[in-house]
Amino acid sequence: MQFADRLRNVETSAIRELFKLLGKPGIISFAGGFPDSALFDVDGIRAASNQALADEPGAALQYGATEGYQPLREQIAAFMASKGAQDVAPDQLIVTTGSQQALDLLGKTLISPDDKVIVEGPTFLATIQCFRLYGAELISAPIDSNGVDTDALEALVAQHRPKFIYLIPTFGNPSGALLNLERRKKVLELAVRTNTLVVEDDPYGDLYFDAPPPPSLLALSPTVPGSRDLLVYCGSLSKVLSPGLRVGWMVAPADLLAKATMCKQFSDAHTSTFAQATAAQYLKAGRMPATLQRVRQVYAERALAMGNALRQELGDALEFAQPQGGLFVWARLTGAGGKLADGNVFAQQAIAQGVAFVPGTPFFCAQPDAATLRLSFATANVQTITEGVKRLAQAL
Amino acid sequence: MQFADRLRNVETSAIRELFKLLGKPGIISFAGGFPDSALFDVDGIRAASNQALADEPGAALQYGATEGYQPLREQIAAFMASKGAQDVAPDQLIVTTGSQQALDLLGKTLISPDDKVIVEGPTFLATIQCFRLYGAELISAPIDSNGVDTDALEALVAQHRPKFIYLIPTFGNPSGALLNLERRKKVLELAVRTNTLVVEDDPYGDLYFDAPPPPSLLALSPTVPGSRDLLVYCGSLSKVLSPGLRVGWMVAPADLLAKATMCKQFSDAHTSTFAQATAAQYLKAGRMPATLQRVRQVYAERALAMGNALRQELGDALEFAQPQGGLFVWARLTGAGGKLADGNVFAQQAIAQGVAFVPGTPFFCAQPDAATLRLSFATANVQTITEGVKRLAQAL
Repeated sequence: MQFADRLRNVETSAIRELFKLLGKPGIISFAGGFPDSALFDVDGIRAASNQALADEPGAALQYGATEGYQPLREQIAAFMASKGAQDVAPDQLIVTTGSQQALDLLGKTLISPDDKVIVEGPTFLATIQCFRLYGAELISAPIDSNGVDTDALEALVAQHRPKFIYLIPTFGNPSGALLNLERRKKVLELAVRTNTLVVEDDPYGDLYFDAPPPPSLLALSPTVPGSRDLLVYCGSLSKVLSPGLRVGWMVAPADLLAKATMCKQFSDAHTSTFAQATAAQYLKAGRMPATLQRVRQVYAERALAMGNALRQELGDALEFAQPQGGLFVWARLTGAGGKLADGNVFAQQAIAQGVAFVPGTPFFCAQPDAATLRLSFATANVQTITEGVKRLAQAL
Repeated sequence: MQFADRLRNVETSAIRELFKLLGKPGIISFAGGFPDSALFDVDGIRAASNQALADEPGAALQYGATEGYQPLREQIAAFMASKGAQDVAPDQLIVTTGSQQALDLLGKTLISPDDKVIVEGPTFLATIQCFRLYGAELISAPIDSNGVDTDALEALVAQHRPKFIYLIPTFGNPSGALLNLERRKKVLELAVRTNTLVVEDDPYGDLYFDAPPPPSLLALSPTVPGSRDLLVYCGSLSKVLSPGLRVGWMVAPADLLAKATMCKQFSDAHTSTFAQATAAQYLKAGRMPATLQRVRQVYAERALAMGNALRQELGDALEFAQPQGGLFVWARLTGAGGKLADGNVFAQQAIAQGVAFVPGTPFFCAQPDAATLRLSFATANVQTITEGVKRLAQAL
């Protein structure tokens, strides 16, 4: 069969292949990119779903507007306001089938073959593949633990004139990095000065441990005149409530939102109204603050346990910044003491010792740092994390 | 903002503009393409959803396989077997976010800009737009009440060498036409003889009135050696159970299914596991046969009422085949007695009389027949249908 030319730009994820090995009995996995199922508020979701079917069975089960179920758009706008983005009206956002679909709609709406898009190096793997499928040439902007290097970003924008810049400013996947306030302002100013669209992907911003992160680019945009017209924000309930609902959203300038809505009409008509009505009832019931508090606490404990264990067991063979939120430790093999400094080889040896993680290479669209790796602390309890890190030390 | 080149190929649906007029108080609508919300088995869906959350809360709310929730794939395979496609294994299908997503994935996977695709004239409007967004050049194959004209189709295949042929063989939207058994075999033979992929879109096949339709192309494919390797089947629960679940599926040759799965990974990761687990429990509970019997009976009554009223009120000014299933009467203004013969003008006049339908023009990718129109009998009761048709007669 002759497939479309665009498929030449991508290949099946290397991570998928690795995940096939995870079925091995007794393996401890730090490989996943998902939240802990044990933390799902099943009772709250059941109550919300039943309420949706009781209140508006027709709307919850019928076709709905492509833009999204209006009561959910209103609840999301209120949720965004509670997080500092006070001025997002319900009609300034559309509901997407997970925030993955927001990425797909941005690709479909904006990217012509050979257009350039700047992403962080490293960044979310499915973003790389999604944009490449639309023919984008991806440019990698360097990051440190304070997020993207804004000076380097500015130079890359001047050099490449990208269609847009894609950032995960808050507890990024895989980096866990947190873009600091100063750089956030610089990003918005850069957008305005160079007339460059910026996409802020923010699935992890609610998962902070001690102190809240700086305001989102969206929340900051009123302080940088003109920046709101050049800003897209992608949000999601997946990491905090349930990925299975597939409820995400996208805030964007009106003309882009209209085109993305048209594209969504021909992608899946609309996001499940059953899931949307359930999410709307859940938010309306006011259960989210308690849910957020609970998941933050659990992930904070696990992040601390993993950091401590890594320092104790691997010492100077591994360097990393202690995460302040999110689901991931992003680490780098230093090669100290003549130890292994290749994340791909280490991943194989770790599997043999009964512990899994994802090597860092696939997260780079260019110039991969082969010494890096991503460890998720989200789904194992503290005891298992400690045991898993011991196995890592043995593997190294 | 500069959008992607592909957006130049499409425009916002003319139907969307018309639908904005439907909010007018007192209007009777034959314009919708959706099932009647009053027929939804709300109790059954609530029970299925609660059972899913009780049995497997983790799976129902967590990320899932891109291919679909395995118990649902198994239930769908059994459902297909009950409809005559005995040999569909669960791993020969993927779950899609409504069958609209199956169309999108076919476009993404198969269509390079300027590839040709043959569709029926008329066909589903969102198919036309979806494929054009991927750059397809659409070729229109003529149909009559027995479905696509297979001789004309063969000539068009020879002339255009299309990437694939897209058909709605059973109670098509908008035509309501039923491809007869002889032509179904001819389509499969044509596929094999010319090595042309055929896509069978089948959202309406369960909605027959008196007798079941001929077997689907999928069910017939074992009788035409080689045809199964050139056949894609798209199914959906939207018209029979609930569109709001957004649960469809696609059966396809293994290599195509693998590529479509990869594309789906970057489109929405997977279809809502919450909706999938609910659908799986619903099918497992064995409620579908009774549900199907009920909706068939209601739509059969309404189709009969509409047909009778049209004949009585509009006489020879309108010609149409009495539908044997589905949701639509496809009709043509004859101009008899010097009456109006333009569907677009008629639609405007009808709105003024308090009744709405969709003119036929937008359903053609080329050479539109401006005298045609689509009337849905799905959502109005018999009394309202009778009143609505009287208004149509007044408008004409």
